[in-house]
Amino acid sequence: MSDEDSPDGGVTRVVSVELDQGRDYDIFIGPGTIHHAAEYLPFDVEGRAAFVVTDENAAPYARAVGQALEQAGAWPVHTLTLAPGEATKSFATLGEIADWLLERRVRRSSPVFAVGGGVVGDIVGFAAAVALRGLPYVQVPTTLLSQVDSAVGGKTGLNVAAGKNLIGAFYQPRAVFIDTDALKTLGARERRSGYAEILKYALIGDPEMFAWLEASGQAVLDLEPGAAARAIEMSCAAKARIVGADEREAEGGRRALLNLGHTFGHALEAATGYDGRLTHGEAVSIGTVMALDTSVRLDLAPEADYERVLAHMEALSMPTRAAEVEGLETTPGALMELMQADKKAGPGGALNFVLLEGIGQAFVTSDVPEDVLGAVLADSLG
Amino acid sequence: MSDEDSPDGGVTRVVSVELDQGRDYDIFIGPGTIHHAAEYLPFDVEGRAAFVVTDENAAPYARAVGQALEQAGAWPVHTLTLAPGEATKSFATLGEIADWLLERRVRRSSPVFAVGGGVVGDIVGFAAAVALRGLPYVQVPTTLLSQVDSAVGGKTGLNVAAGKNLIGAFYQPRAVFIDTDALKTLGARERRSGYAEILKYALIGDPEMFAWLEASGQAVLDLEPGAAARAIEMSCAAKARIVGADEREAEGGRRALLNLGHTFGHALEAATGYDGRLTHGEAVSIGTVMALDTSVRLDLAPEADYERVLAHMEALSMPTRAAEVEGLETTPGALMELMQADKKAGPGGALNFVLLEGIGQAFVTSDVPEDVLGAVLADSLG
Repeated sequence: MSDEDSPDGGVTRVVSVELDQGRDYDIFIGPGTIHHAAEYLPFDVEGRAAFVVTDENAAPYARAVGQALEQAGAWPVHTLTLAPGEATKSFATLGEIADWLLERRVRRSSPVFAVGGGVVGDIVGFAAAVALRGLPYVQVPTTLLSQVDSAVGGKTGLNVAAGKNLIGAFYQPRAVFIDTDALKTLGARERRSGYAEILKYALIGDPEMFAWLEASGQAVLDLEPGAAARAIEMSCAAKARIVGADEREAEGGRRALLNLGHTFGHALEAATGYDGRLTHGEAVSIGTVMALDTSVRLDLAPEADYERVLAHMEALSMPTRAAEVEGLETTPGALMELMQADKKAGPGGALNFVLLEGIGQAFVTSDVPEDVLGAVLADSLG
Repeated sequence: MSDEDSPDGGVTRVVSVELDQGRDYDIFIGPGTIHHAAEYLPFDVEGRAAFVVTDENAAPYARAVGQALEQAGAWPVHTLTLAPGEATKSFATLGEIADWLLERRVRRSSPVFAVGGGVVGDIVGFAAAVALRGLPYVQVPTTLLSQVDSAVGGKTGLNVAAGKNLIGAFYQPRAVFIDTDALKTLGARERRSGYAEILKYALIGDPEMFAWLEASGQAVLDLEPGAAARAIEMSCAAKARIVGADEREAEGGRRALLNLGHTFGHALEAATGYDGRLTHGEAVSIGTVMALDTSVRLDLAPEADYERVLAHMEALSMPTRAAEVEGLETTPGALMELMQADKKAGPGGALNFVLLEGIGQAFVTSDVPEDVLGAVLADSLG
């Protein structure tokens, strides 16, 4: 990590993702970072056509990205605007982006910019991975959730009938531009959704970060520039360390720790039928409490840590219980079946849980007795 | 390269493809090699479900592959049979294969076997690259063309409206099984199509291989076991050296040499509208003569080498002139336009030709005057 004075007087924080084969890349974090693309991009944009893919939600911001690239020398800048929403992560959209790129004579050296939230980053990154067997791409995430999670680490992909993200590629961007100015239009739910993933990094491996969040979490949610940038920087640095050690999610590798709260969370999302009642981040927030509760019931984590995390989350009005989800009609048994189905559709064999030995000490286990699981789910629902 | 006595008394030749990150793999060549999958596969098949994807042409042979895997301990063995032909290399088939794998609960450790010609290898390899972000796959090529070319080197992909192979991945197999017994049903055209690529390797970089082909080419076309296996081994070893040095086809890299005869050949294929009058190998065969002719006209290669290669090709009844293509109505100008269109759709910028300084001495240049090109095309058509 390092700080660089950016030309407009703001401060750009830089987090490096270290990989093999010369694929290292930097994450530039701060207000207005995208306007400095010309200085920071690891390749010359002068005279190169650039391809910007966005969705309707991020289209106004994508126009600013296009202007910045035009001023930096890229010519022409082509822009494609996708429909917003999870349904965009489809084979149909992949084909649409690929045809669009190829019709415009994209070259192997042409950069593709993914400007938007996680949906845009995932599908555009995948299109960049497979068009001409690989184009350089740049992530420009515009939601707090994508800035701290999906834009970093090279997971790209789409959804099919059998499940979400089951088709894709590990394909790393050449740079990530995180512009904290892009967050200003986010509503409270979207901010809290992103915060759930920020909190995750602290709980996985960084007790000092958790203490900092206790002091500064409200400032992060309020998007105070310094606090937001610092939280994003710590989150990206945590993810960069994990991805650098386990890029392709090897069996038993560290990348699995990033699923803290996700085994429970995915089941909750599935139980709502992905109808918008529960965002991914809200599901992770509730799932994180379930993981902590499980850890305490198994005498793995001290109850004091559970209370401390819960107090922090409640102070920020983060969702902590499944009972809070409007009109959620499900049972512990039904949620357990959804977890099993998620496991079977997914890459691994066993149903794994990320549990905690305490704040900042996560580990993976498949050894959770069914009665404990049932009690945790019943408590959250009740 | 090494020879290993195989359990049934035949000889299996082994060519290694050396890559970084522990991705080295072996190519096993000989009669009935697939029956020794259990001994040669670089992973344990015991108890693992295996997925075999083939097309209607290779289906009988794929059944033998499935039986060999069942006997080796893989259980169950699922088989999917695709329609034969280039139209199978589509997004639609990619989705079909992916859904089929996922519905059968494929795991990250489940091997996928691509049994068939180049079409099957390309689309199944691509499906393996993207399903669960990467499954281990094994190439089992059943045509001479795919055995010496497309099954080795990790290029996978599909066709879109803008052109052939414009979507895909560099994704290496874990092993390649080349069973010379699978070739017995090939007709003369298919044998000669494969032979065009074998000849290519000799002309690119191996004058001794060319001398051997002069002596043994007919035996190769007759599929005499020793000669066929030796020609395949030399071809795979040549391709393995090039791929090991330039896996991802870098600009100015050695992999471009594999396009000897292809710039011309692709234009001829396009001129026939891919209607079956001209196979890919036949187009390469004619294109190779054009590349040699260009080299001689530019005083790069000795005329004696051109005469020697032409005599060899004529002795084997290989196609050498565009005029031989039934009902081909085109002009030098039209072919030049098709070459330009191919270039624009493709990954590179300039229109590149692989030319020869002599037998076994290929190089890439974009410096071919239009009048020379026109004369070469006119001669071949006339």
